[in-house]
Amino acid sequence: MPDSLFTTDAMREVFSGRARIARMLEFEAALAQAAADASVIPRAAADVIAGHCDVANFDIAAIERSMVRSGNLAIPLVAALTKHVGDGHDARRYVHWGATSQDAIDTGLVLQLRDALALIETDVGHLAATLAKRAREHADTLLAGRTWLQQALPITLGLKLAGFVSTLDRHRERIAAARERVLVLQFGGAAGTLASLDDQGLAIGEHLAKRLALHLPDMPWHTQRDRLCEVAAMLGMLTATLGKLGRDVALLAQTELGEAHEPGAPGRGGSSTMPQKRNPVSASVAIAASIRVPGLVATMLTAAVQEHERGLGNWPAEWETLPEIALLAAGALAAMIEVADGLDIDVNRMRSNLDLTQGLIFAEAVQTALAPTVGRDSAHALVAGACRRAIAERVHLRDILARDAAVSGALDAATLDRLFDPVCYLGESRAFVERALARYPATG
Amino acid sequence: MPDSLFTTDAMREVFSGRARIARMLEFEAALAQAAADASVIPRAAADVIAGHCDVANFDIAAIERSMVRSGNLAIPLVAALTKHVGDGHDARRYVHWGATSQDAIDTGLVLQLRDALALIETDVGHLAATLAKRAREHADTLLAGRTWLQQALPITLGLKLAGFVSTLDRHRERIAAARERVLVLQFGGAAGTLASLDDQGLAIGEHLAKRLALHLPDMPWHTQRDRLCEVAAMLGMLTATLGKLGRDVALLAQTELGEAHEPGAPGRGGSSTMPQKRNPVSASVAIAASIRVPGLVATMLTAAVQEHERGLGNWPAEWETLPEIALLAAGALAAMIEVADGLDIDVNRMRSNLDLTQGLIFAEAVQTALAPTVGRDSAHALVAGACRRAIAERVHLRDILARDAAVSGALDAATLDRLFDPVCYLGESRAFVERALARYPATG
Amino acid sequence: MPDSLFTTDAMREVFSGRARIARMLEFEAALAQAAADASVIPRAAADVIAGHCDVANFDIAAIERSMVRSGNLAIPLVAALTKHVGDGHDARRYVHWGATSQDAIDTGLVLQLRDALALIETDVGHLAATLAKRAREHADTLLAGRTWLQQALPITLGLKLAGFVSTLDRHRERIAAARERVLVLQFGGAAGTLASLDDQGLAIGEHLAKRLALHLPDMPWHTQRDRLCEVAAMLGMLTATLGKLGRDVALLAQTELGEAHEPGAPGRGGSSTMPQKRNPVSASVAIAASIRVPGLVATMLTAAVQEHERGLGNWPAEWETLPEIALLAAGALAAMIEVADGLDIDVNRMRSNLDLTQGLIFAEAVQTALAPTVGRDSAHALVAGACRRAIAERVHLRDILARDAAVSGALDAATLDRLFDPVCYLGESRAFVERALARYPATG
Amino acid sequence: MPDSLFTTDAMREVFSGRARIARMLEFEAALAQAAADASVIPRAAADVIAGHCDVANFDIAAIERSMVRSGNLAIPLVAALTKHVGDGHDARRYVHWGATSQDAIDTGLVLQLRDALALIETDVGHLAATLAKRAREHADTLLAGRTWLQQALPITLGLKLAGFVSTLDRHRERIAAARERVLVLQFGGAAGTLASLDDQGLAIGEHLAKRLALHLPDMPWHTQRDRLCEVAAMLGMLTATLGKLGRDVALLAQTELGEAHEPGAPGRGGSSTMPQKRNPVSASVAIAASIRVPGLVATMLTAAVQEHERGLGNWPAEWETLPEIALLAAGALAAMIEVADGLDIDVNRMRSNLDLTQGLIFAEAVQTALAPTVGRDSAHALVAGACRRAIAERVHLRDILARDAAVSGALDAATLDRLFDPVCYLGESRAFVERALARYPATG
Repeated sequence: MPDSLFTTDAMREVFSGRARIARMLEFEAALAQAAADASVIPRAAADVIAGHCDVANFDIAAIERSMVRSGNLAIPLVAALTKHVGDGHDARRYVHWGATSQDAIDTGLVLQLRDALALIETDVGHLAATLAKRAREHADTLLAGRTWLQQALPITLGLKLAGFVSTLDRHRERIAAARERVLVLQFGGAAGTLASLDDQGLAIGEHLAKRLALHLPDMPWHTQRDRLCEVAAMLGMLTATLGKLGRDVALLAQTELGEAHEPGAPGRGGSSTMPQKRNPVSASVAIAASIRVPGLVATMLTAAVQEHERGLGNWPAEWETLPEIALLAAGALAAMIEVADGLDIDVNRMRSNLDLTQGLIFAEAVQTALAPTVGRDSAHALVAGACRRAIAERVHLRDILARDAAVSGALDAATLDRLFDPVCYLGESRAFVERALARYPATG
Repeated sequence: MPDSLFTTDAMREVFSGRARIARMLEFEAALAQAAADASVIPRAAADVIAGHCDVANFDIAAIERSMVRSGNLAIPLVAALTKHVGDGHDARRYVHWGATSQDAIDTGLVLQLRDALALIETDVGHLAATLAKRAREHADTLLAGRTWLQQALPITLGLKLAGFVSTLDRHRERIAAARERVLVLQFGGAAGTLASLDDQGLAIGEHLAKRLALHLPDMPWHTQRDRLCEVAAMLGMLTATLGKLGRDVALLAQTELGEAHEPGAPGRGGSSTMPQKRNPVSASVAIAASIRVPGLVATMLTAAVQEHERGLGNWPAEWETLPEIALLAAGALAAMIEVADGLDIDVNRMRSNLDLTQGLIFAEAVQTALAPTVGRDSAHALVAGACRRAIAERVHLRDILARDAAVSGALDAATLDRLFDPVCYLGESRAFVERALARYPATG
Repeated sequence: MPDSLFTTDAMREVFSGRARIARMLEFEAALAQAAADASVIPRAAADVIAGHCDVANFDIAAIERSMVRSGNLAIPLVAALTKHVGDGHDARRYVHWGATSQDAIDTGLVLQLRDALALIETDVGHLAATLAKRAREHADTLLAGRTWLQQALPITLGLKLAGFVSTLDRHRERIAAARERVLVLQFGGAAGTLASLDDQGLAIGEHLAKRLALHLPDMPWHTQRDRLCEVAAMLGMLTATLGKLGRDVALLAQTELGEAHEPGAPGRGGSSTMPQKRNPVSASVAIAASIRVPGLVATMLTAAVQEHERGLGNWPAEWETLPEIALLAAGALAAMIEVADGLDIDVNRMRSNLDLTQGLIFAEAVQTALAPTVGRDSAHALVAGACRRAIAERVHLRDILARDAAVSGALDAATLDRLFDPVCYLGESRAFVERALARYPATG
Repeated sequence: MPDSLFTTDAMREVFSGRARIARMLEFEAALAQAAADASVIPRAAADVIAGHCDVANFDIAAIERSMVRSGNLAIPLVAALTKHVGDGHDARRYVHWGATSQDAIDTGLVLQLRDALALIETDVGHLAATLAKRAREHADTLLAGRTWLQQALPITLGLKLAGFVSTLDRHRERIAAARERVLVLQFGGAAGTLASLDDQGLAIGEHLAKRLALHLPDMPWHTQRDRLCEVAAMLGMLTATLGKLGRDVALLAQTELGEAHEPGAPGRGGSSTMPQKRNPVSASVAIAASIRVPGLVATMLTAAVQEHERGLGNWPAEWETLPEIALLAAGALAAMIEVADGLDIDVNRMRSNLDLTQGLIFAEAVQTALAPTVGRDSAHALVAGACRRAIAERVHLRDILARDAAVSGALDAATLDRLFDPVCYLGESRAFVERALARYPATG
């Protein structure tokens, strides 16, 4: 379980040792009732079993320790549940009826994933809405577009943020589309045939899925693990987006740029030695997640190559990996929500940094304006030469160009002035923002 | 580019150096025409440019070598195209109009991916259909279900194969759902604003998307790389499934199991030293792919954290990685198609291997039959004890049980016999096969 | 922290939250004393500080929770330590003197790694010695050598095990060689210059390293992380070896081979449903580790690309990753020690499985014997043809060959018999075992 | 094979298809001669075979295509070699005598790795020497030390560069130490026993190793792959260091920092649209490598879990992965050598950027000076407050502090001035540089 720095309390709760067992007990309770629904076991027995499936009755730590011998969590849990039901009681014989360990463990995991995805979807929605709001507010806020970490052209902060909104919306779309595939029952018995239930297996499965509000898959999937990989991959892609957001914020927060800062708070992002520091702690969390999650997604894909009807080593390799992905994704998401909610934007610094290059950032604008007259590559050569001179002589590019006969032949002074006004060189920025925010009404 | 062993000629063609440049030229040609469609450049110029966009005119190797100085493929390609259009020609100035290198490179890649996904979808469809056919044929073929690499219960070959059909169908569903998200135009100009096209950027983008038969995204996605990660992840999941299929076949082909073999052919899977060997070469290809692809998917996720408006190092990190994933997936798919088409199944060996355990594989059946009478855990203890004795004494489990009063009290001889007949212990195998193959008509 | 199934109590202790803080306090105590050694702070103050550095005085959970705001563990820990020293006390001002958070965190980690490597070295030594002993015992035990999962030639169990001994010895060699590079002090202050210590930084560093019994590196290594990657890589390689050992054992334990089994114990490797099962639980643990660790090693390598004088996100990405690698390696090692100590070897089954192919496994021997007379490729063709006939007619290869004039012309009956005796076809097996076990005296 | 952008011609040559086959032929030639050395085959036959082992005689592409059927490269190569030796010739029977495919493939790979490591070692040495020279030149060049991408304290460029020299030296040390483990012969025959060579296997192995100037391992290592993983890991660690160097240069080259730039050259790092751009192309290459290599190292570790006496799928998974690691490492190394050789350092900009924070960067210096008088945490609080005011009022920190009675009580004006002089706050920078460069004489 990652440190609180890297995840959220809510997601820690979803994947706590206690919750893991609680979800498996939910399966065991529903299984008993489903078997009764199908008239395979007595309702009274089912009620007794279900009545004992309260996680509060179980010694979590002891069951976890027993894994060392049993190799999985279901064996000691079923043993403990059977013991709870009690020696004397007839219901005892119906515990875990027809199921295999993996049925309980996988279905328990799916129930945890349902909670996890719900948290993720809510938070992604929140983050997207916040960024959409800010994107609208800053639809006209100028800053340098940067490529290869160098100033390229002026863009707007609205455009920059809209890119994240658009991407987060795709992540939501993917998660929504995957729900039906992913949130399914696992129920196949020892080798996926439900053989010990005679001809009642499918009927019980139908009741069981209904009781747990899960989809019923066409067949058990003990060693077909694409569903879990899909969750891993979706969260992996989301985390990459959050890592990019964190990285962009951290880069904007550099001392020399100073265009945006994480929200300040007492004791937040301080240094043990340097009193002036305000470290981008939240960005760091998202970036750390984006570094850690890819290797875990790869693990899930490697683990998915499982032998025959139950994997050896590869199935257990998933147990801690998929939760860790969800925990890290949640932490990155929470960190970026905090940043988006309170991002401290220095609009003036954004604008003034556009002047740092003494006009070089408008080189493409000039070149584009010259191209119709002198041709695209002559324009490129002419402007590139002017840029080199501007750098060498430490003079504004506009002044270099004004001196050049070829330029003044093609562009009059007013036109040249307009070319050095960033507001005039934003192209489709506004249109793109509108398209990306179409789902987010302007009066948010 | 992987060796031919690891991929297919068709996919090599999609990602050849020549095809890469051809696809970028397709972008350049369509861009010129789209600019003419929007009346931004003269149609005559567009026709001239488009007329020169034939890959046969270009020196692929020279352009590739030029990457070392330029840092990307578009710069030398646009230079070469401009040179082709010719010094004297007015069209020269309109080459690459309004676009940035990444527009050409990314759109070229998307066009390659469209071809790649088409090949993959066809092949996945073929493999699923073949396996579905074989699953029906072998709906009643008995073999040992194996968990943890040990015989567990009897299952049917039909059930085993149906699991792959079901999974391949989910992969197809994912790919189909992703097409609209993934097969989109990239067109944003230097910093994603299309600034150099004034107010005609979006109009040109619409024409361009239409001409290339790509979807028009809400905005450029130069540093929002989730779409490419999605392709990587889908192919990664597919490859894992193929790896499992290869592994299962290889395990069944072990000398000591001998239940299935890859199709034989002269010189195929031979050994340089051992004349008797028939190595599972195709399985090996799929397994190798399933080992190599996860790390490449992780690379795509790591690379997706791209700075600002163009990444530094992370964008280039994608260039060879995503094609390699597609190439390996295609190779694994082709290998498994060959196996599925010609798999040499030894039905007798499958059946006779069920007898290897001297009845132990029916232990669960007996336990299930005893449970209603003696209780689930007493039944477990009783049968586990009998199993231990059967092993120690090398006697058939049925014989051990027949001697046990507790057993004979609960089960008569005929019942006991039936419990040791695998045909009677297949549970919902048939039903699951039918559900998984619902899309595949029985008279295929 | 992985479940107990996947690691050992001893390694859990090394990387517990409590130990992590205890090690950092060890750094703080030694730092105060080293500053006193260099006469930079009063000895009395150092004694007071050191006197408060007992982990028992600290609220571990509270400090961990504080990471969320501070971004690292050292800030709240130093704050708590300062508070313990007390408002009124002059020593208060000397807490954490000259150090930065990373100095405490990294040195604390190095101290944990020293313990971790000691545990690993001991266990690798134990495992190697056990396997060496068993390799000698089974130097003449015949079993099938298997390539591509198919029987190839007879080998000895001694040879198979000696391969692991040889490899484990190389792992020990690597770990021993890395100790001097890896077990070094981290001490650089805020930006690696020790500026706040004026000209006493290096002197204090020398005392500090000596007090902690760590090597003094040539300079601080806040963002040069090769040392930690080296630990990750070494443990990654070790885990791969353990994964192979686990996989080989699991493959030998297959129902159809039955050549070796994990040591049995009550409740060990049972199934929740199948009373006859004895699952290779320990192998599963080692295999799971070998699947999980590669992605974590990749994370360490990715994280090592840290910016300037302190990384952003990448440094924190290491915090839980490197311990997890050590924990999983330790678990795999313990699992394989248990297997090696109690491996249940069925020598008879190993021998009888050699007969399964009806002589095909001796095909190379025959071919080799024929080659001098008929040539290498004629021999290959002749024997390959005989193999095909043997399979088709279900007849022993010896009998097919005996009927062949070309063969009987070249080899008399006694020679042919000898060729089908596995004992006569072991080549350098014994010599290789002796070479690999040279460090392990025969009378162990 | 990566594009030329990502690797070097020299390393492409080492891992070309032609070189791969040439190295395997070198094995076959040496094998024949070694067998003659041991009087196992006639010298004349060995001479004939060796005489045909010239790669120029072989159709590389045809042999590569044949892999599809044979599953490995050795089978068609040995067939082609045998054909070259000729039907009529007695030597024909002695081709590939006693060896298995993997012997030729692995030994060929080791011979390629020897060349690769030699190239890498030379280049690492060159890079370290260049950086050492520059570190000395800039031992007193001031620039901001940056932590979490924010200015922290002044450091020297010498210190920053010395950190890389120190790390590169450790990489060299690792590579040197690994040579004996890694550069070893592979020779075991079909199952690692050399059975077909009767009792002459080891003798031939000794001659063979000597002829190839490789170390003779204690035993064959067909499925013990730690050696190859070690190469992968070493190159992975090296690439991470190069990625950090590239990233630091790229960050320093940001428009807003402007402290260092990659060497300029015509057409180098240009943009297809922005004439002013000078993109850090070489940094991009190193960063791309550092993103791609970790996943490949993980693949090598995953692949190392190979079954029994020859892996299935995992062995082939190495074939293209390890060369790709070496190719990417070489490319990153070459890119960073180009940067180090011609790095364009703007010493003035480095110095002036130190003034950007209006004294905040000296906050720790002031705090340290105040601590002995007012205590460490009071000093921290006092200075942190002053920093906040300096930011809010946009006033130099020195001026804020000068107004503060507590400060002026403790520090006189001259002391305060000195505290804001970066030259006075470099701690052990010089000493660390000297220690790190000890191997590099000052008069290089």
